[in-house]
Amino acid sequence: MNKRTDTEVIINNKRYTLAGYESEDYLQKVATYINSKYAELKQQEFYRNLDSEMKNVLLQINLADDYFKLKSQMKSTENDSDKKSSEIFDLKHEIISLQTKLEAAQTELAAVKEENLEEQKKIIRLETELNESKKNR
Amino acid sequence: MNKRTDTEVIINNKRYTLAGYESEDYLQKVATYINSKYAELKQQEFYRNLDSEMKNVLLQINLADDYFKLKSQMKSTENDSDKKSSEIFDLKHEIISLQTKLEAAQTELAAVKEENLEEQKKIIRLETELNESKKNR
Repeated sequence: MNKRTDTEVIINNKRYTLAGYESEDYLQKVATYINSKYAELKQQEFYRNLDSEMKNVLLQINLADDYFKLKSQMKSTENDSDKKSSEIFDLKHEIISLQTKLEAAQTELAAVKEENLEEQKKIIRLETELNESKKNR
Repeated sequence: MNKRTDTEVIINNKRYTLAGYESEDYLQKVATYINSKYAELKQQEFYRNLDSEMKNVLLQINLADDYFKLKSQMKSTENDSDKKSSEIFDLKHEIISLQTKLEAAQTELAAVKEENLEEQKKIIRLETELNESKKNR
């Protein structure tokens, strides 16, 4: 946990001392972000003619707008992520089903090969017997 | 695209008319959100004793703080989503590998069964021949 510290930030060309538990780095990042929103607004002609209260509200709205835009991206990223989870679930099921089929095929293959071997032995036995029988004719 | 409209919102108990392309619903949502941040701050003793400029900056910082918190959640959701993508990639590869093994096992099984059948025919032929040979002795 951070210690309570005082941090000086400059927002809209004014210096403020903020007391709190947030790190200095974080508060400077926040101040830089707010200043970038001021800079965006100041580029627009209409903003310069507004009274300070309206300027203030516009800045708040722009900050809130960033928040809601990010929230909507977040929703879409979460939806994507949920879809991926359900795809993973389906793929894992497919893998289990393929593994089961593969094991069954391998078991059957082993049994059929064993049968084959027995038949080959039987063929050799029969051929020997047949040769013997022909010799004795 | 929305038409340019005027929307009246109340922010911190003051009425503002906002001209823009955003829908009335969206601007009311933004206003409600900003008012909820004001309400949070007003519950704190120290806030009430601040001058209006400092109150203003604190509200901006709280809005920006929500934005950065959401951004950090977004980053973690995106990381999760990226991990899922790479898991999907791996699972799909595993499926292809299993399908290949399964096809190979099935092809081998068909060939061994065919061999088996030929051996069984040969056994019948040999047994018949042997019986004939024994009869002729």
